[in-house]
Amino acid sequence: MDAILQLYERKSVRAYTEEPIAPEDRRTILNAALQAPTAGNMMLYTVLDITDPQIKDALAVSCDDQPFIARAPMVLVFVADYARWHRIFCLNQGENVRHPGKGDLLLAVADAVIAAQNAVVAAQALGLGSCYIGDILERAEEHRALLKLPEYTIPAAMLCIGHPTAQQQSREKPGRFSMEYMVSENQYPQLSDEALRRMVEEQARLNRRSDPSFDGVVSALYRRKYTADFSREMNRSAAVYLQQWEDTEQ
Amino acid sequence: MDAILQLYERKSVRAYTEEPIAPEDRRTILNAALQAPTAGNMMLYTVLDITDPQIKDALAVSCDDQPFIARAPMVLVFVADYARWHRIFCLNQGENVRHPGKGDLLLAVADAVIAAQNAVVAAQALGLGSCYIGDILERAEEHRALLKLPEYTIPAAMLCIGHPTAQQQSREKPGRFSMEYMVSENQYPQLSDEALRRMVEEQARLNRRSDPSFDGVVSALYRRKYTADFSREMNRSAAVYLQQWEDTEQ
Repeated sequence: MDAILQLYERKSVRAYTEEPIAPEDRRTILNAALQAPTAGNMMLYTVLDITDPQIKDALAVSCDDQPFIARAPMVLVFVADYARWHRIFCLNQGENVRHPGKGDLLLAVADAVIAAQNAVVAAQALGLGSCYIGDILERAEEHRALLKLPEYTIPAAMLCIGHPTAQQQSREKPGRFSMEYMVSENQYPQLSDEALRRMVEEQARLNRRSDPSFDGVVSALYRRKYTADFSREMNRSAAVYLQQWEDTEQ
Repeated sequence: MDAILQLYERKSVRAYTEEPIAPEDRRTILNAALQAPTAGNMMLYTVLDITDPQIKDALAVSCDDQPFIARAPMVLVFVADYARWHRIFCLNQGENVRHPGKGDLLLAVADAVIAAQNAVVAAQALGLGSCYIGDILERAEEHRALLKLPEYTIPAAMLCIGHPTAQQQSREKPGRFSMEYMVSENQYPQLSDEALRRMVEEQARLNRRSDPSFDGVVSALYRRKYTADFSREMNRSAAVYLQQWEDTEQ
Protein backbone atom coordinates (compact mmCIF):
# COMPACT_ATOMS: atom_id res chain seq x y z
CA MET A 1 0.00 0.00 0.00
CA ASP A 2 1.83 2.99 -1.31
CA ALA A 3 -0.45 5.52 0.43
CA ILE A 4 0.07 3.86 3.81
CA LEU A 5 3.82 3.64 3.36
CA GLN A 6 3.89 7.35 2.62
CA LEU A 7 2.10 8.05 5.91
CA TYR A 8 4.67 5.94 7.75
CA GLU A 9 7.66 7.51 6.05
CA ARG A 10 6.70 11.17 6.12
CA LYS A 11 9.12 13.25 8.15
CA SER A 12 9.58 16.99 8.62
CA VAL A 13 11.61 18.71 5.93
CA ARG A 14 13.13 22.08 6.85
CA ALA A 15 15.57 22.64 3.96
CA TYR A 16 14.42 23.10 0.40
CA THR A 17 16.09 23.34 -2.98
CA GLU A 18 15.70 26.51 -5.07
CA GLU A 19 13.20 24.73 -7.33
CA PRO A 20 9.81 26.43 -7.17
CA ILE A 21 6.62 24.42 -6.75
CA ALA A 22 4.74 24.06 -10.03
CA PRO A 23 1.45 26.01 -10.09
CA GLU A 24 -0.54 22.80 -10.69
CA ASP A 25 1.09 21.20 -7.65
CA ARG A 26 0.20 24.23 -5.54
CA ARG A 27 -3.40 23.86 -6.63
CA THR A 28 -3.37 20.13 -5.96
CA ILE A 29 -2.16 20.73 -2.40
CA LEU A 30 -4.75 23.45 -1.77
CA ASN A 31 -7.54 21.33 -3.25
CA ALA A 32 -6.53 18.36 -1.10
CA ALA A 33 -6.80 20.63 1.95
CA LEU A 34 -10.24 21.92 0.94
CA GLN A 35 -11.54 18.40 0.33
CA ALA A 36 -10.68 17.39 3.90
CA PRO A 37 -13.38 16.33 6.37
CA THR A 38 -15.09 19.33 7.97
CA ALA A 39 -17.74 19.63 10.68
CA GLY A 40 -21.18 19.90 9.06
CA ASN A 41 -19.52 20.81 5.75
CA MET A 42 -19.08 24.33 7.14
CA MET A 43 -15.32 24.57 6.47
CA LEU A 44 -14.51 26.50 9.64
CA TYR A 45 -11.15 27.75 8.41
CA THR A 46 -9.42 29.96 5.89
CA VAL A 47 -6.12 29.16 4.21
CA LEU A 48 -3.61 31.98 3.79
CA ASP A 49 -1.15 31.37 1.00
CA ILE A 50 1.84 33.52 1.96
CA THR A 51 3.64 34.60 -1.20
CA ASP A 52 4.82 38.10 -0.26
CA PRO A 53 8.56 37.89 0.57
CA GLN A 54 8.19 40.64 3.18
CA ILE A 55 5.52 38.71 5.05
CA LYS A 56 7.57 35.51 4.82
CA ASP A 57 10.56 37.41 6.22
CA ALA A 58 8.42 38.75 9.05
CA LEU A 59 7.11 35.26 9.86
CA ALA A 60 10.64 33.84 9.80
CA VAL A 61 11.49 36.26 12.62
CA SER A 62 8.20 36.20 14.56
CA CYS A 63 8.01 32.39 14.50
CA ASP A 64 10.96 31.89 16.84
CA ASP A 65 13.62 33.03 14.37
CA GLN A 66 13.60 30.23 11.83
CA PRO A 67 15.14 31.62 8.61
CA PHE A 68 14.13 28.58 6.55
CA ILE A 69 10.53 29.86 6.65
CA ALA A 70 11.51 32.82 4.47
CA ARG A 71 13.11 30.46 1.94
CA ALA A 72 10.22 27.98 1.72
CA PRO A 73 8.61 28.00 -1.76
CA MET A 74 5.16 27.56 -0.22
CA VAL A 75 4.00 28.84 3.15
CA LEU A 76 0.42 28.19 4.24
CA VAL A 77 -1.33 29.40 7.38
CA PHE A 78 -4.44 27.46 8.35
CA VAL A 79 -6.65 29.87 10.23
CA ALA A 80 -9.40 28.42 12.40
CA ASP A 81 -12.20 30.73 11.35
CA TYR A 82 -15.57 31.40 12.93
CA ALA A 83 -15.47 35.02 11.78
CA ARG A 84 -16.88 34.07 8.38
CA TRP A 85 -19.83 32.12 9.77
CA HIS A 86 -20.55 34.66 12.47
CA ARG A 87 -20.86 37.29 9.73
CA ILE A 88 -23.00 34.98 7.60
CA PHE A 89 -25.33 34.28 10.53
CA CYS A 90 -25.57 38.01 11.24
CA LEU A 91 -26.39 38.71 7.57
CA ASN A 92 -29.19 36.20 7.79
CA GLN A 93 -30.47 36.74 11.35
CA GLY A 94 -29.68 40.33 12.15
CA GLU A 95 -27.36 41.27 14.98
CA ASN A 96 -28.88 39.14 17.75
CA VAL A 97 -26.64 36.22 16.97
CA ARG A 98 -24.67 34.74 19.89
CA HIS A 99 -20.90 35.09 19.79
CA PRO A 100 -18.83 31.99 19.00
CA GLY A 101 -17.95 29.98 22.09
CA LYS A 102 -15.10 27.74 23.18
CA GLY A 103 -16.71 24.69 21.56
CA ASP A 104 -16.99 26.53 18.25
CA LEU A 105 -13.33 27.44 18.64
CA LEU A 106 -12.20 23.85 19.14
CA LEU A 107 -14.32 22.63 16.20
CA ALA A 108 -12.76 25.31 14.01
CA VAL A 109 -9.24 24.43 15.19
CA ALA A 110 -9.93 20.77 14.35
CA ASP A 111 -11.25 21.70 10.88
CA ALA A 112 -8.16 23.83 10.20
CA VAL A 113 -5.70 21.17 11.37
CA ILE A 114 -7.46 18.36 9.48
CA ALA A 115 -7.16 20.43 6.30
CA ALA A 116 -3.49 21.13 7.03
CA GLN A 117 -2.72 17.45 7.41
CA ASN A 118 -4.38 16.72 4.06
CA ALA A 119 -2.03 19.31 2.56
CA VAL A 120 0.92 17.49 4.17
CA VAL A 121 -0.19 14.14 2.75
CA ALA A 122 -0.76 15.63 -0.71
CA ALA A 123 2.64 17.35 -0.67
CA GLN A 124 4.32 14.05 0.23
CA ALA A 125 2.51 12.28 -2.61
CA LEU A 126 3.89 14.95 -4.97
CA GLY A 127 7.45 14.35 -3.72
CA LEU A 128 7.50 17.53 -1.69
CA GLY A 129 8.63 17.96 1.90
CA SER A 130 6.74 19.86 4.58
CA CYS A 131 7.15 21.14 8.10
CA TYR A 132 4.62 22.36 10.67
CA ILE A 133 5.50 25.60 12.44
CA GLY A 134 3.78 25.57 15.84
CA ASP A 135 5.23 29.00 16.55
CA ILE A 136 2.50 30.63 14.48
CA LEU A 137 0.52 30.52 17.77
CA GLU A 138 2.95 33.03 19.29
CA ARG A 139 2.83 36.85 19.09
CA ALA A 140 -0.92 37.15 18.76
CA GLU A 141 -0.93 40.93 18.43
CA GLU A 142 1.80 40.97 15.77
CA HIS A 143 0.36 38.11 13.73
CA ARG A 144 -3.14 39.57 13.87
CA ALA A 145 -1.81 42.81 12.44
CA LEU A 146 0.45 41.13 9.88
CA LEU A 147 -2.19 38.74 8.53
CA LYS A 148 -5.20 41.01 9.21
CA LEU A 149 -6.85 38.36 11.36
CA PRO A 150 -10.28 39.43 12.64
CA GLU A 151 -11.97 38.42 15.90
CA TYR A 152 -12.97 34.75 16.11
CA THR A 153 -10.01 33.51 14.15
CA ILE A 154 -6.83 31.86 15.33
CA PRO A 155 -3.85 30.69 13.27
CA ALA A 156 -4.09 27.00 14.17
CA ALA A 157 -1.30 25.65 11.99
CA MET A 158 1.37 26.81 9.59
CA LEU A 159 3.13 24.73 6.95
CA CYS A 160 6.28 25.25 4.94
CA ILE A 161 6.47 23.14 1.78
CA GLY A 162 9.19 22.67 -0.81
CA HIS A 163 11.43 20.24 -2.67
CA PRO A 164 13.63 18.50 -0.09
CA THR A 165 17.39 18.86 -0.34
CA ALA A 166 19.35 15.62 -0.74
CA GLN A 167 20.53 15.92 2.86
CA GLN A 168 16.94 16.16 4.08
CA GLN A 169 15.86 13.22 1.95
CA SER A 170 18.45 10.95 3.49
CA ARG A 171 17.86 12.14 7.06
CA GLU A 172 16.42 9.42 9.27
CA LYS A 173 12.90 9.91 10.59
CA PRO A 174 12.90 10.19 14.39
CA GLY A 175 11.37 7.10 16.01
CA ARG A 176 8.09 7.49 17.85
CA PHE A 177 6.99 6.15 21.23
CA SER A 178 5.77 2.62 20.82
CA MET A 179 2.11 1.74 20.57
CA GLU A 180 1.88 0.10 23.98
CA TYR A 181 2.24 3.53 25.62
CA MET A 182 0.32 5.58 23.06
CA VAL A 183 -2.81 3.48 22.53
CA SER A 184 -5.00 2.30 25.36
CA GLU A 185 -8.12 0.18 25.30
CA ASN A 186 -11.30 1.91 26.46
CA GLN A 187 -9.83 4.22 29.07
CA TYR A 188 -6.99 6.60 29.61
CA PRO A 189 -4.01 4.42 30.57
CA GLN A 190 -2.66 4.16 34.10
CA LEU A 191 1.02 4.13 33.22
CA SER A 192 3.36 3.63 36.16
CA ASP A 193 6.35 5.89 36.70
CA GLU A 194 8.47 2.97 35.55
CA ALA A 195 6.51 2.61 32.32
CA LEU A 196 6.95 6.33 31.58
CA ARG A 197 10.69 6.05 32.15
CA ARG A 198 10.83 3.00 29.92
CA MET A 199 8.81 4.77 27.22
CA VAL A 200 11.26 7.69 27.11
CA GLU A 201 14.40 5.54 27.26
CA GLU A 202 13.24 3.07 24.61
CA GLN A 203 12.60 5.93 22.20
CA ALA A 204 15.92 7.57 23.05
CA ARG A 205 17.79 4.34 22.28
CA LEU A 206 15.77 3.90 19.07
CA ASN A 207 16.90 7.39 18.07
CA ARG A 208 20.50 6.64 19.12
CA ARG A 209 20.69 9.56 21.54
CA SER A 210 24.17 9.99 22.97
CA ASP A 211 22.60 10.13 26.45
CA PRO A 212 19.49 7.91 26.35
CA SER A 213 18.89 8.13 30.10
CA PHE A 214 15.46 9.33 31.24
CA ASP A 215 16.90 12.28 33.12
CA GLY A 216 19.20 13.26 30.28
CA VAL A 217 16.44 13.24 27.67
CA VAL A 218 13.78 14.86 29.81
CA SER A 219 16.01 17.61 31.23
CA ALA A 220 16.92 18.60 27.68
CA LEU A 221 13.28 18.68 26.57
CA TYR A 222 12.24 20.52 29.69
CA ARG A 223 14.78 23.22 28.89
CA ARG A 224 14.31 23.32 25.12
CA LYS A 225 10.53 22.82 24.92
CA TYR A 226 8.79 23.57 28.18
CA THR A 227 10.65 26.44 29.80
CA ALA A 228 12.12 28.09 26.72
CA ASP A 229 11.12 31.66 25.86
CA PHE A 230 9.07 30.51 22.87
CA SER A 231 7.00 28.26 25.12
CA ARG A 232 6.22 31.02 27.60
CA GLU A 233 5.33 33.29 24.67
CA MET A 234 3.11 30.64 23.06
CA ASN A 235 1.14 30.22 26.27
CA ARG A 236 0.73 33.98 26.66
CA SER A 237 -0.29 34.44 23.05
CA ALA A 238 -2.70 31.50 22.97
CA ALA A 239 -4.43 32.87 26.06
CA VAL A 240 -4.90 36.17 24.19
CA TYR A 241 -6.51 34.37 21.26
CA LEU A 242 -8.73 32.29 23.50
CA GLN A 243 -10.10 35.25 25.44
CA GLN A 244 -12.32 36.40 22.61
CA TRP A 245 -14.26 33.13 22.42
CA GLU A 246 -17.04 33.42 24.93
CA ASP A 247 -17.80 31.02 27.69
CA THR A 248 -21.39 30.12 27.05
CA GLU A 249 -23.65 31.84 29.51
CA GLN A 250 -25.57 28.84 30.88
CA MET B 1 -1.90 10.07 -8.35
CA ASP B 2 -3.90 7.53 -6.42
CA ALA B 3 -3.07 8.99 -3.00
CA ILE B 4 -4.25 12.44 -4.06
CA LEU B 5 -7.46 11.11 -5.62
CA GLN B 6 -8.22 9.36 -2.35
CA LEU B 7 -7.88 12.65 -0.47
CA TYR B 8 -10.27 14.29 -2.93
CA GLU B 9 -12.83 11.50 -2.81
CA ARG B 10 -12.94 10.77 0.89
CA LYS B 11 -16.36 11.44 2.40
CA SER B 12 -17.90 10.69 5.78
CA VAL B 13 -19.28 7.18 6.18
CA ARG B 14 -21.84 6.68 8.97
CA ALA B 15 -23.24 3.22 8.12
CA TYR B 16 -21.10 0.10 8.24
CA THR B 17 -21.56 -3.52 7.27
CA GLU B 18 -21.32 -6.23 9.93
CA GLU B 19 -17.86 -7.17 8.70
CA PRO B 20 -15.28 -6.63 11.42
CA ILE B 21 -12.00 -4.85 10.71
CA ALA B 22 -9.11 -7.28 10.39
CA PRO B 23 -6.62 -7.03 13.27
CA GLU B 24 -3.77 -6.17 10.87
CA ASP B 25 -5.85 -3.33 9.41
CA ARG B 26 -6.54 -2.01 12.91
CA ARG B 27 -2.82 -1.98 13.58
CA THR B 28 -2.10 -0.31 10.25
CA ILE B 29 -4.54 2.49 11.07
CA LEU B 30 -3.11 2.97 14.57
CA ASN B 31 0.46 2.94 13.26
CA ALA B 32 -0.40 5.51 10.61
CA ALA B 33 -1.77 7.74 13.37
CA LEU B 34 1.35 7.33 15.52
CA GLN B 35 3.63 8.11 12.58
CA ALA B 36 1.92 11.47 12.04
CA PRO B 37 3.82 14.75 12.43
CA THR B 38 4.05 15.83 16.08
CA ALA B 39 5.46 18.93 17.77
CA GLY B 40 9.05 18.26 18.86
CA ASN B 41 8.43 14.50 18.50
CA MET B 42 6.65 14.67 21.87
CA MET B 43 3.40 13.00 20.71
CA LEU B 44 1.12 15.18 22.81
CA TYR B 45 -1.85 12.81 22.60
CA THR B 46 -3.15 9.41 23.61
CA VAL B 47 -5.36 7.23 21.44
CA LEU B 48 -8.23 5.39 23.12
CA ASP B 49 -9.37 2.34 21.19
CA ILE B 50 -12.94 1.85 22.36
CA THR B 51 -13.81 -1.85 22.15
CA ASP B 52 -16.09 -2.28 25.18
CA PRO B 53 -19.72 -2.41 23.89
CA GLN B 54 -20.97 -0.68 27.04
CA ILE B 55 -18.66 2.27 26.52
CA LYS B 56 -19.62 2.44 22.83
CA ASP B 57 -23.29 2.41 23.85
CA ALA B 58 -22.65 5.20 26.33
CA LEU B 59 -20.82 7.29 23.71
CA ALA B 60 -23.64 6.70 21.21
CA VAL B 61 -25.97 8.40 23.69
CA SER B 62 -23.64 11.05 25.09
CA CYS B 63 -22.43 12.15 21.64
CA ASP B 64 -25.76 13.68 20.64
CA ASP B 65 -27.66 10.38 20.32
CA GLN B 66 -26.05 8.84 17.27
CA PRO B 67 -26.71 5.07 17.43
CA PHE B 68 -24.33 4.30 14.55
CA ILE B 69 -21.43 4.96 16.97
CA ALA B 70 -22.37 1.83 18.95
CA ARG B 71 -22.35 -0.23 15.76
CA ALA B 72 -19.03 1.02 14.40
CA PRO B 73 -16.41 -1.76 14.29
CA MET B 74 -13.68 0.67 15.33
CA VAL B 75 -14.09 3.71 17.56
CA LEU B 76 -11.05 5.83 18.35
CA VAL B 77 -10.83 8.83 20.66
CA PHE B 78 -7.82 11.10 20.09
CA VAL B 79 -7.08 12.71 23.41
CA ALA B 80 -4.95 15.85 23.41
CA ASP B 81 -2.65 14.96 26.28
CA TYR B 82 -0.31 17.10 28.32
CA ALA B 83 -0.95 14.98 31.41
CA ARG B 84 1.70 12.47 30.35
CA TRP B 85 4.40 15.08 29.81
CA HIS B 86 3.51 17.05 32.90
CA ARG B 87 4.02 13.84 34.91
CA ILE B 88 7.28 13.10 33.10
CA PHE B 89 8.59 16.60 33.78
CA CYS B 90 7.60 16.26 37.45
CA LEU B 91 9.37 12.89 37.67
CA ASN B 92 12.50 14.54 36.33
CA GLN B 93 12.33 18.00 37.94
CA GLY B 94 10.40 17.51 41.14
CA GLU B 95 7.09 19.26 41.75
CA ASN B 96 8.11 22.81 40.83
CA VAL B 97 7.10 22.35 37.22
CA ARG B 98 4.73 24.93 35.75
CA HIS B 99 1.25 23.77 34.80
CA PRO B 100 0.45 23.38 31.10
CA GLY B 101 -0.88 26.58 29.54
CA LYS B 102 -3.23 27.48 26.73
CA GLY B 103 -0.44 27.26 24.13
CA ASP B 104 0.46 23.77 25.31
CA LEU B 105 -3.23 22.91 25.00
CA LEU B 106 -3.47 24.09 21.40
CA LEU B 107 -0.26 22.28 20.43
CA ALA B 108 -1.63 19.09 21.96
CA VAL B 109 -4.99 19.51 20.19
CA ALA B 110 -3.14 19.96 16.88
CA ASP B 111 -1.03 16.84 17.54
CA ALA B 112 -4.14 14.80 18.33
CA VAL B 113 -6.07 15.98 15.27
CA ILE B 114 -3.11 15.51 12.91
CA ALA B 115 -2.86 11.91 14.13
CA ALA B 116 -6.61 11.42 13.68
CA GLN B 117 -6.47 12.63 10.09
CA ASN B 118 -3.66 10.18 9.35
CA ALA B 119 -5.96 7.44 10.66
CA VAL B 120 -8.69 8.67 8.29
CA VAL B 121 -6.35 8.61 5.31
CA ALA B 122 -5.06 5.14 6.23
CA ALA B 123 -8.60 3.79 6.66
CA GLN B 124 -9.56 5.12 3.24
CA ALA B 125 -6.50 3.48 1.66
CA LEU B 126 -7.67 0.18 3.21
CA GLY B 127 -11.16 0.59 1.71
CA LEU B 128 -12.71 1.56 5.03
CA GLY B 129 -15.04 4.46 5.72
CA SER B 130 -14.73 6.88 8.62
CA CYS B 131 -16.60 9.65 10.33
CA TYR B 132 -15.48 12.33 12.78
CA ILE B 133 -17.71 12.83 15.82
CA GLY B 134 -17.29 16.41 17.01
CA ASP B 135 -19.74 15.72 19.84
CA ILE B 136 -16.99 14.06 21.85
CA LEU B 137 -16.27 17.63 23.03
CA GLU B 138 -19.64 17.69 24.83
CA ARG B 139 -20.45 16.47 28.34
CA ALA B 140 -17.02 17.05 29.83
CA GLU B 141 -17.90 15.66 33.24
CA GLU B 142 -19.48 12.49 31.86
CA HIS B 143 -16.73 11.78 29.33
CA ARG B 144 -14.01 12.42 31.88
CA ALA B 145 -15.57 9.83 34.15
CA LEU B 146 -16.32 7.34 31.36
CA LEU B 147 -12.85 7.48 29.77
CA LYS B 148 -10.96 8.25 33.01
CA LEU B 149 -9.49 11.41 31.52
CA PRO B 150 -7.09 13.19 33.90
CA GLU B 151 -6.39 16.90 34.17
CA TYR B 152 -4.59 18.41 31.15
CA THR B 153 -6.29 16.17 28.63
CA ILE B 154 -9.15 16.92 26.27
CA PRO B 155 -10.84 14.56 23.79
CA ALA B 156 -9.98 16.51 20.65
CA ALA B 157 -11.43 14.15 18.05
CA MET B 158 -13.34 10.91 17.77
CA LEU B 159 -13.51 8.61 14.77
CA CYS B 160 -15.82 5.79 13.80
CA ILE B 161 -14.40 3.42 11.21
CA GLY B 162 -15.87 0.46 9.36
CA HIS B 163 -16.64 -1.14 6.02
CA PRO B 164 -19.04 1.16 4.18
CA THR B 165 -22.47 -0.14 3.20
CA ALA B 166 -23.27 -0.10 -0.54
CA GLN B 167 -25.61 2.84 0.03
CA GLN B 168 -22.82 4.84 1.69
CA GLN B 169 -20.37 3.96 -1.05
CA SER B 170 -22.65 5.37 -3.75
CA ARG B 171 -23.61 8.48 -1.77
CA GLU B 172 -22.33 11.64 -3.38
CA LYS B 173 -19.73 13.64 -1.48
CA PRO B 174 -21.07 17.08 -0.51
CA GLY B 175 -19.43 19.84 -2.54
CA ARG B 176 -17.17 22.28 -0.75
CA PHE B 177 -16.96 26.06 -0.96
CA SER B 178 -14.78 27.00 -3.88
CA MET B 179 -11.17 27.98 -3.54
CA GLU B 180 -11.67 31.66 -4.32
CA TYR B 181 -13.44 32.09 -0.95
CA MET B 182 -11.38 29.66 1.10
CA VAL B 183 -7.83 30.56 0.10
CA SER B 184 -6.48 34.08 0.29
CA GLU B 185 -3.10 35.43 -0.63
CA ASN B 186 -1.04 36.85 2.25
CA GLN B 187 -3.85 38.24 4.37
CA TYR B 188 -7.23 37.30 5.73
CA PRO B 189 -9.67 38.06 2.90
CA GLN B 190 -12.01 41.03 2.87
CA LEU B 191 -15.05 39.26 1.44
CA SER B 192 -18.01 41.53 0.75
CA ASP B 193 -21.51 40.59 1.93
CA GLU B 194 -22.28 39.80 -1.69
CA ALA B 195 -19.32 37.43 -1.97
CA LEU B 196 -20.44 35.59 1.17
CA ARG B 197 -23.94 35.22 -0.23
CA ARG B 198 -22.53 33.98 -3.52
CA MET B 199 -20.26 31.50 -1.71
CA VAL B 200 -23.19 29.95 0.14
CA GLU B 201 -25.53 29.87 -2.87
CA GLU B 202 -22.95 28.45 -5.27
CA GLN B 203 -22.31 25.58 -2.87
CA ALA B 204 -26.02 25.02 -2.30
CA ARG B 205 -26.61 24.74 -6.05
CA LEU B 206 -23.60 22.44 -6.39
CA ASN B 207 -25.19 20.22 -3.75
CA ARG B 208 -28.61 20.46 -5.44
CA ARG B 209 -30.34 21.83 -2.35
CA SER B 210 -34.09 22.12 -2.84
CA ASP B 211 -33.87 25.70 -1.53
CA PRO B 212 -30.45 27.05 -2.54
CA SER B 213 -31.23 30.61 -1.44
CA PHE B 214 -28.81 32.20 1.02
CA ASP B 215 -31.50 32.72 3.62
CA GLY B 216 -32.89 29.22 3.23
CA VAL B 217 -29.52 27.55 3.62
CA VAL B 218 -28.24 29.76 6.42
CA SER B 219 -31.45 29.70 8.48
CA ALA B 220 -31.36 25.90 8.42
CA LEU B 221 -27.70 25.80 9.51
CA TYR B 222 -28.29 28.44 12.15
CA ARG B 223 -31.02 26.26 13.64
CA ARG B 224 -29.34 22.87 13.18
CA LYS B 225 -25.73 23.81 13.93
CA TYR B 226 -25.44 27.08 15.81
CA THR B 227 -28.41 27.27 18.16
CA ALA B 228 -29.16 23.57 18.62
CA ASP B 229 -28.88 22.03 22.08
CA PHE B 230 -25.72 20.13 21.14
CA SER B 231 -24.02 23.38 20.17
CA ARG B 232 -24.87 25.08 23.46
CA GLU B 233 -23.65 21.97 25.30
CA MET B 234 -20.43 21.82 23.28
CA ASN B 235 -19.61 25.41 24.17
CA ARG B 236 -20.34 24.82 27.84
CA SER B 237 -18.33 21.61 27.93
CA ALA B 238 -15.36 23.00 26.00
CA ALA B 239 -15.18 25.92 28.44
CA VAL B 240 -14.98 23.38 31.29
CA TYR B 241 -12.07 21.59 29.61
CA LEU B 242 -10.28 24.84 28.85
CA GLN B 243 -10.46 26.15 32.41
CA GLN B 244 -7.79 23.78 33.68
CA TRP B 245 -5.12 25.04 31.27
CA GLU B 246 -3.51 27.99 32.94
CA ASP B 247 -3.11 31.42 31.50
CA THR B 248 0.60 32.00 31.78
CA GLU B 249 1.49 34.39 34.53
CA GLN B 250 3.62 36.89 32.64
